[in-house]
Amino acid sequence: MGGSSRRARLERPMSEQHITPRAKDYAQWYQDVIAAAQLAEPANVVRGCMVVRPHGWAIWEKLQAELDRRFKETGHQNAAFPLLIPLSFLQKEAQHATGFAMECAVVTHAGLRNVDGKIELKGELEEPYVVRPTSETIIGHFFSKWIDSYRDLPMLLNQWCNVMRWELRTRLFLRTGEFWWQEGHTAHASHQEAMEEVMRMLDVYREVYHDVLAVPVIRGRKTANERFAGALETFCVEAMMQDGKSLQGATSHDLGQNFGKAFNVTFQNKEGVRDFVWQTSWGSSTRMIGALIMAHSDDGGLVLPPKLAPIHVAIVPIWKSDAEKAQVLEASDKLARELRADGLSVKLDDRDAMRPGEKYYEWERKGVPVRLEVGPRDVASGTAMAKTRISDSKDKVKLPFDEIGVHVGKLLDQVQRTLFERALAFRQSNLTKVDAWSDFEAVFAEQGSKFVLAHWDGTTETELAIKEATKATIRCIPLSDEGLDDGPGKCVKTLKPSAQRVLFAKNY
Amino acid sequence: MGGSSRRARLERPMSEQHITPRAKDYAQWYQDVIAAAQLAEPANVVRGCMVVRPHGWAIWEKLQAELDRRFKETGHQNAAFPLLIPLSFLQKEAQHATGFAMECAVVTHAGLRNVDGKIELKGELEEPYVVRPTSETIIGHFFSKWIDSYRDLPMLLNQWCNVMRWELRTRLFLRTGEFWWQEGHTAHASHQEAMEEVMRMLDVYREVYHDVLAVPVIRGRKTANERFAGALETFCVEAMMQDGKSLQGATSHDLGQNFGKAFNVTFQNKEGVRDFVWQTSWGSSTRMIGALIMAHSDDGGLVLPPKLAPIHVAIVPIWKSDAEKAQVLEASDKLARELRADGLSVKLDDRDAMRPGEKYYEWERKGVPVRLEVGPRDVASGTAMAKTRISDSKDKVKLPFDEIGVHVGKLLDQVQRTLFERALAFRQSNLTKVDAWSDFEAVFAEQGSKFVLAHWDGTTETELAIKEATKATIRCIPLSDEGLDDGPGKCVKTLKPSAQRVLFAKNY
Repeated sequence: MGGSSRRARLERPMSEQHITPRAKDYAQWYQDVIAAAQLAEPANVVRGCMVVRPHGWAIWEKLQAELDRRFKETGHQNAAFPLLIPLSFLQKEAQHATGFAMECAVVTHAGLRNVDGKIELKGELEEPYVVRPTSETIIGHFFSKWIDSYRDLPMLLNQWCNVMRWELRTRLFLRTGEFWWQEGHTAHASHQEAMEEVMRMLDVYREVYHDVLAVPVIRGRKTANERFAGALETFCVEAMMQDGKSLQGATSHDLGQNFGKAFNVTFQNKEGVRDFVWQTSWGSSTRMIGALIMAHSDDGGLVLPPKLAPIHVAIVPIWKSDAEKAQVLEASDKLARELRADGLSVKLDDRDAMRPGEKYYEWERKGVPVRLEVGPRDVASGTAMAKTRISDSKDKVKLPFDEIGVHVGKLLDQVQRTLFERALAFRQSNLTKVDAWSDFEAVFAEQGSKFVLAHWDGTTETELAIKEATKATIRCIPLSDEGLDDGPGKCVKTLKPSAQRVLFAKNY
Repeated sequence: MGGSSRRARLERPMSEQHITPRAKDYAQWYQDVIAAAQLAEPANVVRGCMVVRPHGWAIWEKLQAELDRRFKETGHQNAAFPLLIPLSFLQKEAQHATGFAMECAVVTHAGLRNVDGKIELKGELEEPYVVRPTSETIIGHFFSKWIDSYRDLPMLLNQWCNVMRWELRTRLFLRTGEFWWQEGHTAHASHQEAMEEVMRMLDVYREVYHDVLAVPVIRGRKTANERFAGALETFCVEAMMQDGKSLQGATSHDLGQNFGKAFNVTFQNKEGVRDFVWQTSWGSSTRMIGALIMAHSDDGGLVLPPKLAPIHVAIVPIWKSDAEKAQVLEASDKLARELRADGLSVKLDDRDAMRPGEKYYEWERKGVPVRLEVGPRDVASGTAMAKTRISDSKDKVKLPFDEIGVHVGKLLDQVQRTLFERALAFRQSNLTKVDAWSDFEAVFAEQGSKFVLAHWDGTTETELAIKEATKATIRCIPLSDEGLDDGPGKCVKTLKPSAQRVLFAKNY
């Protein structure tokens, strides 16, 4: 059985077969996990861009739904602004902010013509456009048209879209030319109200990381050096990956009145005086998929938190004779229908030309949280053997057909909870307070990274010197309610006074 | 009450206040309806593009959900392909197809630099990219990587994305530079299976038009002249607008092996022989919002089918004294909570500084299907006055607070049904069989249009001559099960033999 199918599979690229162990080559492991789960692949023909394949996009759709629901519950509405931004808008921004992204795709022509079978450009534009790297400028322009009075405030918008940055070194999900994200843009009548929004959305991101991705994060403030160009303050959530590096999970910016001034977004306040609006922006992207891969997956491939799994349960029927086949398929189909009725997404893998072990292997690599095996003896006893994606292969449990949805639901809850607890325990064991420079250097020697809480004198100069020496950067200045601070001290590098410990790590 | 608010509103652009009657200027009416409902506006600073505002985008999200559910039920998966397409891909396509869209945005540079405060282009690309006008070429490229055997078929993908065509004459929703759509792309092992897919998706579009948009459509085949470049056959659904013109609502293409040959998408069939795959593509876009506006709206503004209404019910409390206010707000709030518990989207309009009549006017212009008025006498009697968006203002019904969700649900069903019946009756009264050329000319004289079923000799020459003379084009050759054909006859223009009647109309 299945001989020709196995041959066909072996002819496939090694990348879809073999997963390099983490301990051997973490970067290669990451790529292998993505390839083996068919989440995405480099576009190659479009420099630095990626194709997100159905299994990857299905995860993104689930994540979008979780975020979008929370954005709407906090009063935001979605809208869509143009993909292209006039060059003059960036010129305006340049006068108010420095250091914004200059690596972007530029549209200079508006058409093609076919000259004797060869395609040439036509219609050179008077003013070029850039493909949006982010939309503060163009949204600022429309805010100035829509906002006139305090009655129009707050304006609370969000956009789901693709953006593009011409990155030199790319990595699937983590950093690609084109990526998909949401960008929230809001305008307020006071700085205090804007700050409440900034923190509210930061907390939404934390909630989604904790409750949905099952990835613990630390909330904090960026240093001036790591801040978004044009923001007064940038806040972020930082997550630890399995190699001890940090991944910036989402950002929330206090834009002050900077964009209001650049794009003349004014309003008449309650006292009848015109003032510039106070703006915020906040974003999260397909990068989150990179975060969840690197936080949970193992040498067997992708591990997904059930809340983001496109398939919750894979049912693998096991048979030898045709009579057995009819029997196990009937029972499997009944289980599938019951589980679906309970709102679960189920794959009944009834492929003929594959052995059960091959099927197990495939669903494991794709991160399906629960597998049910149904053989003739299981049918006879009215039970199925269940294995979760994160339990040992010996560690199977027998579940009764009766109320199968309840039992599987419990397993899914357990996987979701265990993933978070496991990631949190890993972070706790790799988070350390360091006071001596030699200890600091030791943590970050070679490929190493941990989360290091250390004192810093508050200057960009010292920040850069530490980065130069160790490749570790200040990921954030943790918020006080993260409970990571223990008061003032002396800078780990310069011994100058420091108000509080900050979080150092190598980062993605 | 509300004096300053009214002043503020009067200072707003006339476009948001006044709706030109259809009879006076249909094109202006269309723009006015969109502005008054705040659905979208021209981007202006980005040539030919639009901004879709929250109320418009919320309609699109509902429409997406309805389509997406049906795509998934018919076995399709979503994926995401790059925004940019290498110029060489269009070159390949040009060798296999002629007449494809040449009016597209071209990216020639990969960055900007700040030279003394002035922004200049940098990083000229060796090979330019176009911003996708559609994705057959790039998806063909990836199909050739992913498809190797009949076991990989059918491959059933869909993409939700933005696309761009550099249109000279633009109109909100109907034709803009950038627009949002879905494009299905599938590959099959046989032409027959591909054709089944083409017709299956055409029927999905019809179902969504009929059951969701409440707009009746006619399914048909395009003539060679109106066919998608590179397709063997293009099928479409055509809807009648209130001016008698036709709007192409969605298309479904039989691509044959054309793209398979251009991008070398081959597979080994069951007999072990390599062959090119048979492909289809099918799409629908934000244009559907234009269709539903022009099919249902009236001189009072937007009319929405309840299944696409972002707000189902607007509750307007009515009070004079503070005591009355407390009382009606409490009752209104209770109603809102009950309706929401029944899955309805409810706006409780408790704004202080506006009179009830102004509120009615606003929700009418935004197309909210049901309005509930709650005054002190209503509270006393335990009832609310309900008015649907399409009933006369005298035609209000009294609904008991008790089981309010059931009563409102019935009204919503009634509005949904009535909209479809009204649009179908309108189409029936404006669909006519014409045999004499003078009658044909009369129908299309001046601004006029109807749906005309007439005989045609099957040549592009005659098709173009008719268009030249009347501006009417062949919208489609109706499918036989549309029941519109009555056998062979003589061409309305040339009197040459004709196999069946075809559908003529002016079009959007």
